[in-house]
Amino acid sequence: LRALADVLLANPHVMVLSDDIYEHLIFNDTPFATIAQIEPRLRDRALTVNGVSKAYSMTGWRIGWAGGPQWLIRAITKAQSQSTSCASSISQAAAVAALNGPQEHLRAWKKAFVERRDLAVRMLNEAPGLSCLTPPGAFYVYPSCAGVIGMTDPQGNRIASDVDFCNYLLHSAGVGVVAGQAFGQSPNFRISYALSLERLQQACQRIQQACAALTR
Amino acid sequence: LRALADVLLANPHVMVLSDDIYEHLIFNDTPFATIAQIEPRLRDRALTVNGVSKAYSMTGWRIGWAGGPQWLIRAITKAQSQSTSCASSISQAAAVAALNGPQEHLRAWKKAFVERRDLAVRMLNEAPGLSCLTPPGAFYVYPSCAGVIGMTDPQGNRIASDVDFCNYLLHSAGVGVVAGQAFGQSPNFRISYALSLERLQQACQRIQQACAALTR
Repeated sequence: LRALADVLLANPHVMVLSDDIYEHLIFNDTPFATIAQIEPRLRDRALTVNGVSKAYSMTGWRIGWAGGPQWLIRAITKAQSQSTSCASSISQAAAVAALNGPQEHLRAWKKAFVERRDLAVRMLNEAPGLSCLTPPGAFYVYPSCAGVIGMTDPQGNRIASDVDFCNYLLHSAGVGVVAGQAFGQSPNFRISYALSLERLQQACQRIQQACAALTR
Repeated sequence: LRALADVLLANPHVMVLSDDIYEHLIFNDTPFATIAQIEPRLRDRALTVNGVSKAYSMTGWRIGWAGGPQWLIRAITKAQSQSTSCASSISQAAAVAALNGPQEHLRAWKKAFVERRDLAVRMLNEAPGLSCLTPPGAFYVYPSCAGVIGMTDPQGNRIASDVDFCNYLLHSAGVGVVAGQAFGQSPNFRISYALSLERLQQACQRIQQACAALTR
């Protein structure tokens, strides 16, 4: 963030939008900081966004917020209040309760995500043709499927891209993942491991079996 | 609605947006019907909108809906899902409970609004310079203030328009109303009577006193 802030200081025409929704899901010893904290001189052009969806498992309540310079918040308010009026008042009250309430659940909650991450990374690396790095936060893994490109599935279809591989996983293994093409880096795919350890293990087993069923 | 439907049938390029949020606030014997029920041939270009804000006093939950032709609903869904994602799932569940739950409150609720309307209409007609029709639904009255235009308030300011009169009410009587200019018909103003009978009476008394304090 420090190095990025230096680049941004040298480019004053660039606005900064910092999505800090995974604030409480950092697995290594890196302390959390927003870029506006790292470099206060960016504050007049940085928008810091966050919400209750992740740390408080309140996805359905649809409450997020943004902090930034007054002129920008005013413009956002003006545009948003014309298109959607306000967020549910009940959701707003629930979000206040979540933020002001006890935070002890965060420790056990993060520990559960570390277990899920470790299981997913280990099992995906065991799958023939896949290779997965260990991410230090959030709840996604982004394995490479370079090793299965060019192989053929049991129905005789050739796997020519990560999109082909993801379709194969969906239709043959019943596992839904997102092709890396959507994120601009192929051949990879994204798995969200925000689900129970049992379901995650079952999904990884199916991915392993699906990979083992490919032939060259 | 029948006469309007005939005009719309003769003008097939006109889309119809029917705001039926006051469905349950009709005070006379007119049965409720949407324009799409009155004239089914309009269904392929009519959007019927409604919500839980009024009949269920669930304003803060921010739940409304629209019914219309599939092509239009698809387009709305596409546009809206890119700008605001979905409505709070908790609010959606509450709305389902409201719609499927007991509806007996609606009778007493409507009766309370009739009382409020009758009080407001009577007291506004007693105010010198004001004249108010009795509306057959919703929770607004729209009195004319033609009789006070050209008069002078105790501070010596001339009331030249409904906007002047509304500002006078706000600053001298502490009553907030909306100038008719905003709705395209002057000199009038809008009062929402969705508040307790006591507060409404107090507001109408203040309006009466404010009108009585004007001089020619």
